[in-house]
Amino acid sequence: MPLTAADCARLDAGPDAPAFAALRERFAPGTPGTVYLDANSIGPMPLAAPARVQAALDAGWRVARRRSWNEFDWLDQPRALGQALAGVLGAGPDDVRVGESTTVNQYRLLRLALTLKAPRRVIVAERDVFSSNRYAAQGIAHAGLAELRLVPQADAAALAQALAPGDVAVVALSHVDYRHSLRLDMAALTAQAQAAGALALWDLSHSAGAVAVDLRGSAADLALGCGYKYLCGGPGAPSFVYAHPRWQDAAWPAICGWMGHADTFAFEHDYRPAAGMDGFLVGTPAVLANAAFSAAADLWRGIDPALLDARHRSLTDTLDTLVAQQCGALGVEVSSPREHARRGGHVALRFAHAGALAQALVAHGVVVSARKPDALRLGVHPLTTTHAELWQAVQVLRSLLEAGAWRDPRYQGSSV
Amino acid sequence: MPLTAADCARLDAGPDAPAFAALRERFAPGTPGTVYLDANSIGPMPLAAPARVQAALDAGWRVARRRSWNEFDWLDQPRALGQALAGVLGAGPDDVRVGESTTVNQYRLLRLALTLKAPRRVIVAERDVFSSNRYAAQGIAHAGLAELRLVPQADAAALAQALAPGDVAVVALSHVDYRHSLRLDMAALTAQAQAAGALALWDLSHSAGAVAVDLRGSAADLALGCGYKYLCGGPGAPSFVYAHPRWQDAAWPAICGWMGHADTFAFEHDYRPAAGMDGFLVGTPAVLANAAFSAAADLWRGIDPALLDARHRSLTDTLDTLVAQQCGALGVEVSSPREHARRGGHVALRFAHAGALAQALVAHGVVVSARKPDALRLGVHPLTTTHAELWQAVQVLRSLLEAGAWRDPRYQGSSV
Repeated sequence: MPLTAADCARLDAGPDAPAFAALRERFAPGTPGTVYLDANSIGPMPLAAPARVQAALDAGWRVARRRSWNEFDWLDQPRALGQALAGVLGAGPDDVRVGESTTVNQYRLLRLALTLKAPRRVIVAERDVFSSNRYAAQGIAHAGLAELRLVPQADAAALAQALAPGDVAVVALSHVDYRHSLRLDMAALTAQAQAAGALALWDLSHSAGAVAVDLRGSAADLALGCGYKYLCGGPGAPSFVYAHPRWQDAAWPAICGWMGHADTFAFEHDYRPAAGMDGFLVGTPAVLANAAFSAAADLWRGIDPALLDARHRSLTDTLDTLVAQQCGALGVEVSSPREHARRGGHVALRFAHAGALAQALVAHGVVVSARKPDALRLGVHPLTTTHAELWQAVQVLRSLLEAGAWRDPRYQGSSV
Repeated sequence: MPLTAADCARLDAGPDAPAFAALRERFAPGTPGTVYLDANSIGPMPLAAPARVQAALDAGWRVARRRSWNEFDWLDQPRALGQALAGVLGAGPDDVRVGESTTVNQYRLLRLALTLKAPRRVIVAERDVFSSNRYAAQGIAHAGLAELRLVPQADAAALAQALAPGDVAVVALSHVDYRHSLRLDMAALTAQAQAAGALALWDLSHSAGAVAVDLRGSAADLALGCGYKYLCGGPGAPSFVYAHPRWQDAAWPAICGWMGHADTFAFEHDYRPAAGMDGFLVGTPAVLANAAFSAAADLWRGIDPALLDARHRSLTDTLDTLVAQQCGALGVEVSSPREHARRGGHVALRFAHAGALAQALVAHGVVVSARKPDALRLGVHPLTTTHAELWQAVQVLRSLLEAGAWRDPRYQGSSV
C-alpha cells in the first residue's frame, strides 16, 4: 500500500517524537517551506553556533586578544571537540582530535599507516572513492612513497586478490560512498585487511553524525572524516582524526608541528611526539571555526547513537519508499541500498540528468545536490529532518519529473 | 634629549595622521585604556569582521546551506584573499593563495622544494627558528625524505659553509625571528641560496602586515606565513602560500587534494594539478575563518606598503627609544635591532624573567607576550597602535621594573 502524507505525519508523532522535537529546536530553522536535504554537503546550523562564534570574536579576538589562548582555552579545542564526538563515532573518550582539513588528514593517516607497516608499501583504495581521497594517495605514490593498488568498490574478491601478495600496508576505504551511499561493513573489512597484515583506514565523512558508527567495536585502525556534513560543525569546519589506542603512541607523524609536540611551549629543539592523540595535532587550532563547531559538539555529547541510527533508518526508509512508489515510473531509480545497514547518510537516486534535476529541485525549494555522472543525493539529517518534509520533497520531485523540468535551459549550468 | 609624552603626541599628529586615524577607525577598539602590543600573536579585529562572519553564518550556513558554495563563491575565497594580500607581500596579483595551517604549508613547501631540486636532498634551516618550522623539517628528515642541516641564525659564514657541498635543495628561513625580531635580508639571502643552486623558502609570519615585504623584488622562490598575526585574519586564521611564477606550474604537490585539481568538479580519476597557484590548494576552504579574514583583506587591498613600513618604523623607533631611555637602567635590554630595516614586527626586550614580567604587564593593561628563555615581545600594529599608547606602555613597564613586579608569585604561572 502506498505511503500517504498521513503516514508521514504519524511517523513524526511516534514515541520518540518529543525527544526529536526537542533536538530539532536546538537547530536554527532555515527558510520556511524549504526542505533541506543537503546534510551530506553542509549540515544544519545549531542554534548556539552564532553566539559561540560571536563570543570568540568579541570577548576573544576584540577584547582579550592573545590572552584568549589562556583565558578561553583555545588551544584545548581540538581535544574538547574530539571528546564530544567520541560517542557518536563509537570511539574511546580520548581517541579523537579535531583539526586540519579532511584531505590533509587523509594524507597524514595514509603516511602514518605506511610508516607503521614498513617495509610494506602498498595502499589499497577504491577506484571510485571520493576524488580527494584518491588524489591524496596518488600524490604519495607519485612521490615514490607508496604503490597504489585500486580495487572496485565493495568487491570482496578483488580486495582479497589485492591483499594476497602480503605487501599491503593500508586499506583505505570510505565507510559510505559519496555518490550512491553504499555503506560498507566496517568490522568485516577491517578484519579482512588485518588478517592480511594491513591496517584499515576509514573515511567517515558520509556516515559520522548520520548513522551509528562503531570504531572501537569494529577494531578500525585509523579514521577521519569531514566536520561540516552530518556533524554540523559549520561550512569548511576542520576534520576529525581517530586512531585506535594501539597506534596512538606508535610513530612520528608525517607532518610534525608544534601542537603535536610533547611540550609545545618549551620550544624544545627536537620534535618529540606528545603521548596519545595529542601527537596527532599539527598547527594552531582554527579558533573561530572551532567555536562554531563547539555548538554541535554540545549536541553530540548527549546523543544516543542507537537512537540516531533508528531515526535515520525511519527517515531514509520512508524516503526510499516514497520515491519508489511515486517516481519509480518516471525514470529515476533509488540507487542507494534498500537495507539500512548498507545505506549511508543520504538516499541516492540514479538519473541521467541528475545535475539539471538537482538544480530544478533547488529552484523549487528542495535543497539537494548531484554528483557526476548520475547521482542525485538527498541528504536527510536525523536530528532535524521530518517525515512530513520528505513527503513534501517527493511531491516536488514527482511534479518536476512529470514536467520534464530537467530539460529546462535554466538548469543546465554548472553547480558545485 | 629624552622623548616626552608631548613628543609622542606630536608624532601622532604628523602629516599622515588623518590617513592613519581613518585606518584605525576601521578596527574594533578593545578595552579602553588597555594597550595591545600583541599583534605578533593575534592582530586587531577589523570592524567589519563580525558582520562578515555573521553573514556567512546566517545567509550562508543557516539559509542557503549548500547553495552557498555557488551563491557566495565560498570556493573562491582562497584566491580572493590571496589577491588582496598580494600588494602588502610584494607579490604578483595572482601569486598568493590562502588555506591550511602554517605548519602544514611549511611542510608542503619544503616537500615541493625537495621535488623541484631533486636529487638534492638537504634542507638548510636555522637552528633557533620557530619550533614548528623546525619540527616540520625534522619530520621530513625522520621519514628519510631529506637531510636537515641546521645553521645559526644570521651567520653568513655558516650558511656559506652549509651551501658549499652543492647538495642543498632549499634554504628555509624566517624573515623575522619570533623571539628577538631580527629581520633578515631577503634579497641577499635569496641570492646566496640561489647562487648555490638552492631555493629560498621564506616564513613571513612576523613581517607580513607589519613591514614592507618584497617577494617579487627579492626573487624569493617560495613563501608562507601566518594569517592571524599582523595580517589580522582572526585567531587561528588559515595561512597563506606564495610561489614565484617560475615554480607555479612546476611539480605535483606533496599533498594532492581536490581543490588543487585542474577541474575539481569533474571528479576525474587521476590527479592533474591546476595551473598557477590554484595547484597549491588542497582541501575545502575554511569558510567561516575565511569570512573573518575577508574583512582584513579589504583593508590590505588599499594599503601602500611604503606607508605601512614608515608608520611601523616611526612606532618601533619610538618604542625602542622610550624603553632604552626609561628602562635601560632597570635590567632590560632592547634585543631587537636598532636599525629598522633589520627589525621585524615586534620590538623585543631581553630580560631574564621575561615570562613573569609579561604577565605583570598584562595584569596592568599592557598586553604583551614572552618566549623562553628571555624574550619579551611588544608587537605594535602599524594600522592601530599610536605613539601615545607606547608612551603609556613604557610608563607601566618602568613602574613594574622599579617595583620588581616580576618577583610577584602571581606572575610565575605558565602562559601561552
